[in-house]
Amino acid sequence: MTALPPSAKAMVPFVSVDNMMRLVHRVGIETMLRELTDRIEEDFRRWESFDKTPRIASHSRDGVIELMPTSDGTIYGCKYVNGHPKNVASGLQTVTAFGLLAEVASGYPVLLTEMTLLTALRTAATSAMAARYLAPKGARTMAMIGNGAQAEFQALAMKAVIGIEAVRLYDIDPAATEKTRRNLQGSGLSVTACGTAQAAVEGAEIITTCTADKQFATILTDNMVGRGVHLNAIGGDCPGKTELHRDILLRADTFVEYPPQTWIEGEIQQMDKDYPITELWRVVTGQAPGRRDPTQITLFDSVGFAIEDFSALRYLRERIAGTDLYQNLDMIADPDEPRDLFGMLQRAAD
Amino acid sequence: MTALPPSAKAMVPFVSVDNMMRLVHRVGIETMLRELTDRIEEDFRRWESFDKTPRIASHSRDGVIELMPTSDGTIYGCKYVNGHPKNVASGLQTVTAFGLLAEVASGYPVLLTEMTLLTALRTAATSAMAARYLAPKGARTMAMIGNGAQAEFQALAMKAVIGIEAVRLYDIDPAATEKTRRNLQGSGLSVTACGTAQAAVEGAEIITTCTADKQFATILTDNMVGRGVHLNAIGGDCPGKTELHRDILLRADTFVEYPPQTWIEGEIQQMDKDYPITELWRVVTGQAPGRRDPTQITLFDSVGFAIEDFSALRYLRERIAGTDLYQNLDMIADPDEPRDLFGMLQRAAD
Repeated sequence: MTALPPSAKAMVPFVSVDNMMRLVHRVGIETMLRELTDRIEEDFRRWESFDKTPRIASHSRDGVIELMPTSDGTIYGCKYVNGHPKNVASGLQTVTAFGLLAEVASGYPVLLTEMTLLTALRTAATSAMAARYLAPKGARTMAMIGNGAQAEFQALAMKAVIGIEAVRLYDIDPAATEKTRRNLQGSGLSVTACGTAQAAVEGAEIITTCTADKQFATILTDNMVGRGVHLNAIGGDCPGKTELHRDILLRADTFVEYPPQTWIEGEIQQMDKDYPITELWRVVTGQAPGRRDPTQITLFDSVGFAIEDFSALRYLRERIAGTDLYQNLDMIADPDEPRDLFGMLQRAAD
Repeated sequence: MTALPPSAKAMVPFVSVDNMMRLVHRVGIETMLRELTDRIEEDFRRWESFDKTPRIASHSRDGVIELMPTSDGTIYGCKYVNGHPKNVASGLQTVTAFGLLAEVASGYPVLLTEMTLLTALRTAATSAMAARYLAPKGARTMAMIGNGAQAEFQALAMKAVIGIEAVRLYDIDPAATEKTRRNLQGSGLSVTACGTAQAAVEGAEIITTCTADKQFATILTDNMVGRGVHLNAIGGDCPGKTELHRDILLRADTFVEYPPQTWIEGEIQQMDKDYPITELWRVVTGQAPGRRDPTQITLFDSVGFAIEDFSALRYLRERIAGTDLYQNLDMIADPDEPRDLFGMLQRAAD
């Protein structure tokens, strides 16, 4: 007897890096960033319907490997992601990721995908979503401190969603700034490479920090942050890794994703537990104010939360349906009679 | 400019269901079960060198989706697994799984694989490993209560590792028993289909219970368990799901994998916290006795632990090296310059 070919149930759609890039170009990166921003906002609006847990981290000397699961009761999502700042030195990505969606009712996976690119997109879209509520009205200039893999995505999301027209770049490595400047040519953004962080923040209404060192660093000091600015702090995202001087936090109104995780990983790990924070979903649902006045300093202390990945995965699943942008992986053993796993194995002998 | 093809770093070896079945047949199922048993024993021997955490469960009305990560400091392993007893009714597997290995130093995945079959194999191998230390000497007959997807694997592992010659089958559904009997024809085992659990345990030195209902069930009552028997309880593996009457546990010496997880999921969830248990790794390393005398009742309260999957994944990775039993997935974005993720995306536009 010969084995039957695997049935549709056994097949899990897989989106490769190559297909993810095709999708971005087919949709258009700014459109995709806008659509992701809307999708993330939608899921923040129903924040309370999600199962939430701080991500499960496995720390080592060189970095961290994390699992980020969540579920809305119908669909389960999970991302595998690492953070290894030293990887750059050996020609590897600091952050790589892949993700999956599964049906809660059956437990069967329904999507597997590269998520290095998708994480870059959703991180930028999350920043833009927060800026909708927190950035000063009419903001046109952003500073981008840290010009690594996330920089261009951040700039384009702020352009597509907020209407940013000018980006001022700074990185301790001028080659990174030059790379970002070159990549943003033709984007419609006016790009200025700056020699210091101080120069970069001049005139910026939005200051994004996204640096990668695994340490308590001070990328911005208090005197560099003027009244009315929105701070979008991305790089402080694991224990012992922050970017802002705590004096800045004392002057700012701080907004976070999921407090139990942000207290562990975010800028606020520097603060006492009575430091006031606002959950961003409460702003999105109108239960708490976002920016109240033009002189206020707002801080989005972003560490990245599972629901944002969930939004991105759901979006991807819908976007690839009916396209040629995935392949089917024979990943789930699917015997004709479910209890007959062994029989399936036996029949495959020929 | 055209995009370069993805480099080797971007490629993650993937073992499909089809290739896993090929591997089992190429190695031979009994050899593979023996090798897995040895590999699991090896990792139990260095139990203390692993990062351990109870699996991360997402429960729903119909079942559970779990993540089972662990690391030995060099390699990180994680399994995704579901448990949905009702799936059988709709022609789906109760348990499906896939797994991954990653390098701790870089965070890069190095293996992705189907794990429904591999879990069935490692679960049986773990039972056999425990039986090495706990089953009465010279055991030749086992009872197999619950004749679902795990049954044949259990029987063959006990044959290959312990030397079992006869299997006595019972299931509430006679069709399941008939399926198992048929599948074990030609295995060299003498197989008896029994009409009751009571009949099945007659003369058995090893009693394995592996039923799937998500409830407190009593598959075995106290009077059915004679002196000297080894109980291998597999099916009590999530909160609210047990198989044995607590009176049996009061007479038995109970051995477990990882207590913080077994207290949540195992048979011992029925017991008070002062109920004595022994960690199996301490038996394997000689720090605690296994079976002490021929009249003792031993119970392996098995729920399945991440280290067993880790052992199986490591074994698989070595076994497929240099073979045609995997395909490379373009899963990791790998720009020529690691900070230039956006540039890679841009260059893929053509």
